[in-house]
Order: sequence, then structure tokens, then C-alpha cells
Amino acid sequence: MITRNSISPDQKIILVNIANELADAARGAILPFFRTDRMGTKSKEIVCFDPVTEADMAAEHAIRMALAKKRPYDGISGEEYDDIPSKSGLTWIIDPIDGTRAFVSGAPTWGVLIALADSTGPFLGLIDQPYISERFIGGFGQAFYTGPQGEKTLKTRNITDLSETTLFTTFPEVGREQDSKGFGAVKNLVKLVRYGMDCYAYALLAAGHIDLVIEAGLKAYDISAPIAVVEAAGGIVTNWRGGDAHNGGQVVAASNQKLLEQVLVFLLPFAD
Amino acid sequence: MITRNSISPDQKIILVNIANELADAARGAILPFFRTDRMGTKSKEIVCFDPVTEADMAAEHAIRMALAKKRPYDGISGEEYDDIPSKSGLTWIIDPIDGTRAFVSGAPTWGVLIALADSTGPFLGLIDQPYISERFIGGFGQAFYTGPQGEKTLKTRNITDLSETTLFTTFPEVGREQDSKGFGAVKNLVKLVRYGMDCYAYALLAAGHIDLVIEAGLKAYDISAPIAVVEAAGGIVTNWRGGDAHNGGQVVAASNQKLLEQVLVFLLPFAD
Repeated sequence: MITRNSISPDQKIILVNIANELADAARGAILPFFRTDRMGTKSKEIVCFDPVTEADMAAEHAIRMALAKKRPYDGISGEEYDDIPSKSGLTWIIDPIDGTRAFVSGAPTWGVLIALADSTGPFLGLIDQPYISERFIGGFGQAFYTGPQGEKTLKTRNITDLSETTLFTTFPEVGREQDSKGFGAVKNLVKLVRYGMDCYAYALLAAGHIDLVIEAGLKAYDISAPIAVVEAAGGIVTNWRGGDAHNGGQVVAASNQKLLEQVLVFLLPFAD
Repeated sequence: MITRNSISPDQKIILVNIANELADAARGAILPFFRTDRMGTKSKEIVCFDPVTEADMAAEHAIRMALAKKRPYDGISGEEYDDIPSKSGLTWIIDPIDGTRAFVSGAPTWGVLIALADSTGPFLGLIDQPYISERFIGGFGQAFYTGPQGEKTLKTRNITDLSETTLFTTFPEVGREQDSKGFGAVKNLVKLVRYGMDCYAYALLAAGHIDLVIEAGLKAYDISAPIAVVEAAGGIVTNWRGGDAHNGGQVVAASNQKLLEQVLVFLLPFAD
């Protein structure tokens, strides 16, 4: 069985290229639906299409078709279709549109999430924002941005004073009451709190623009790609107990270990 | 004195072109600062520049230089420098970076706001997102988008059932306790509430992607351009009493009159 440590340098390049091809396929599938309000007819009945569902399914289908051809022995775990078990030891974890509420609102902060995992978790990941043509990719100890500013290396920042940090989450309610309390315990200790970014917040953290993301109620496919990107850029992603966050749930991403440790003290009383 | 009604068709085209040139100048001034963390030296002292303040001032300076040359008799009211009184009857109202918290976080939802007003308020406005190369411009009864999706006409949507609407604001706290209560009276009646977009929310409303924006504590330069863009696209912007919102304060933007009327009923008890 393949593991992250048994992959040759040549194979690494191939896997990164495949991840990029999958994201390109998803872009092509999703963009025709973004900021549209499609109506169509099916036999004699007028049918209102749900653009986000249509786009989600079209993108995951495009990704699965490409994987069936290029990586037939890898497993696939996606949001829209049934899981395909891995024969190789590796599994692709896909969320074709993370941030569907941003998508339906026309906001440019949703993203395509693609990760590659072995049995110990994700080790290659990609966050793509098709409308902006922006991509954040990380794995094998390196992370890169491509987009309107060209190509850049991603590196998390090194602020360790909690009172100087910027914290993001998606909803002010965060999740259950317990989740909201955990977030509330941290939010008054930071310099700036911002809402509404979904996966884009992890990209901003990997790129060194913000310091912390705290969320709850996540699925594995919501967090696998962010884990790989953030960790390859020098950050850390854990659950609220400091353990691995591969399965989702309550998640904290920090730009560095010192910051993570300070935040976990406040989150732990509200951890599952 | 010039008013919106005394401007000839040729002059309208000239003014739209000037608004676009001002936005181009602002783009050029701001983008070198976005997603950077500039450090410099001044004599023998190490100085940490504040990228947003530097960018803000550089952009407003660039806009003012262009106006001094092209529209020397128009007034200027901007965030960063002193007001210049109008000799022509027209005044340019400028917020070089609306959404400075988004800007410092690297998020692509801040914008350049440029409006042209006569004594009765703004009648031409522009919301520009330089990083995405996206522009929303409206005036003289017409509104347009240019950006990654090419060129499109902006038109607000016609959902009139409040329970089917999407509502945006910038901070969950909205403003003072009174402002927060007003927002709270509406937020549970809509389908979807989203946070954190600053001026970008008005652009999404003008483009027909969302239905309502409710904010408080705004300055005139925060809302002048959004008023012109939204109204040219078919929407309405008022204060929480249904009066004009040119001076900022408590503001509601709605995609249509029916929706506005329903929302004002809930906001009125909390209106200044």
C-alpha cells in the first residue's frame, strides 16, 4: 500500500499535477453556474434548477471521471456521490463547492477543495477559487499560491501574541451552543474577528494574512484540503483537544504552535 | 450650477469615463500594498508602515490629482484629506478603501468607492474591487458590471417574499445596541444571513444575487457610491425611516420597493 513516505519524487510531481488537473476540471464545471439563476424545461414541466447543486454535482462528476482514468486504484470520498474504497492506500477527498451559501449569494469566497490522504490523514491539498482564478496548493512540505498576483510561496505568519491576531470563522453562531461558547472564549482576546469566509479563511491563514480560524460541525471533506495546505505552509490544524482534525467536527487552525497552545487552553473546556 | 438634470448626453459620457479613470488610478495606487506587509527605513529608525493607511492615502491622492486636472470646479469629499468645496454644483465623494478590515485580512471584499453628487445626493457611483478586477458602475438610469465574467447589465432581483431573501451586513453587532436590535428584528425573518462583505454587499445586491443590506454607523462616503449603483440597477437605499441615506447613519438597501416597505416596519422602532 502507498503511504506519503513511500511516494517517489517523480510520483510527487505527478500527484501535484493531477490535483491541479482535477481543480481545472472543477473550475470548468462550476463557473458556468456561478452568478446565474438557471431555469429549464424537462418534458412539459418547468423545472427550476438549483445552480449550486447542479454545479456541485457537475464538478464532482468531472473530478471522478478524471480520477477513474488517471488513478483507478485510489479511493474517492466526496460530498455528492458514494465513497469508492481505496485499493492503493491513497484516497482523494473532495468538496466540489465549499461555502455553498457564499456561492448562492454571488460572493467570491467559496472554493473547490481537493485533498489526497493516506491512512494517517491528508498530505496534499488544494483550495481553488475559480471566479478569481486563485489557487492555494500545499503538500510535501511546500505550499504555493497562483492567482492575480502571479506565483508566491505560502508561509504562515509568526505573530505569537494572541492580542495581536486576526481570527476568522464562518457564522457568528459557530455551531451548537457549546461551540459558540468555545469561540466566544477566544474572540474577545484577539485584535480582529471576521466572519463569512468558509474555506477561504484557511487560504488566507496559509498565505500569512490572518492567524486563526476556529470552526465547528465540519465534515472530513470540509477540512482535509485546508489541513494539507495550512500545514505545508507552516501552520497547524487540530481539533479543540489538540488532536488530529481529519474527521472534522470542532477545528482550530493556527499560524504557529505557540498561538495554537494559547488558544487550546480556552477551547478545551468546550471540546467534544 | 450643474445638477443631474442639466447634464447633456455628451457630458454624461465624459463623467462616466472620468469615474472609470479615477477608479483605474486608485487600482494602480492600492494593489502594490494589498497582501504585503511592508517594512521600510526612515533615517536610522526602522518604521513599520501600515499598508492600509499607505494605500488609502496613495489612492485618494491619485484620485485628487486626476480631478484637479480634469474637474477643477467640482468639489471633493474624501476620507483621508480635507474637503474641497464645489464651484460647479457637483462634488466627488471618495472612499479609497471601503472595508479596511477585509483589506488587512487579505480578503477580496473591500472596494474603492467613487460617487458624484449634486445638492440632492449621489447620482453616479462606482464600486471597484481591484484585486478581482471587478467593477460595478451605475448612474443615469443604467448600471453595469465588468470583470471576470465580461460585461453585464446590473439589475436587482424581484423577490418580494421576505422569507425567501438573503440579507447581508458587515458585523454581527451591526453598531450600537439599538442598531443591533433593529437588525435582529429582521434577521430571523429572512432565508439567509451573511456577514463580512462591506461595500461588496451592495454590489451583490445591484447584480441581483442578494436582496437586502442593513447597516448602521455609516459615513456619507461609505454609502454614496452604493446608493448610485443600487438605484441605477433598480434597487432602493434609504435610512431606517425610509428617508434619504446620503449622509450615512442607519442604512437599508433593498432590491425592490415592496421588500423595502416590509423591512422598514421592523426597523422603524429602532430608527434614529
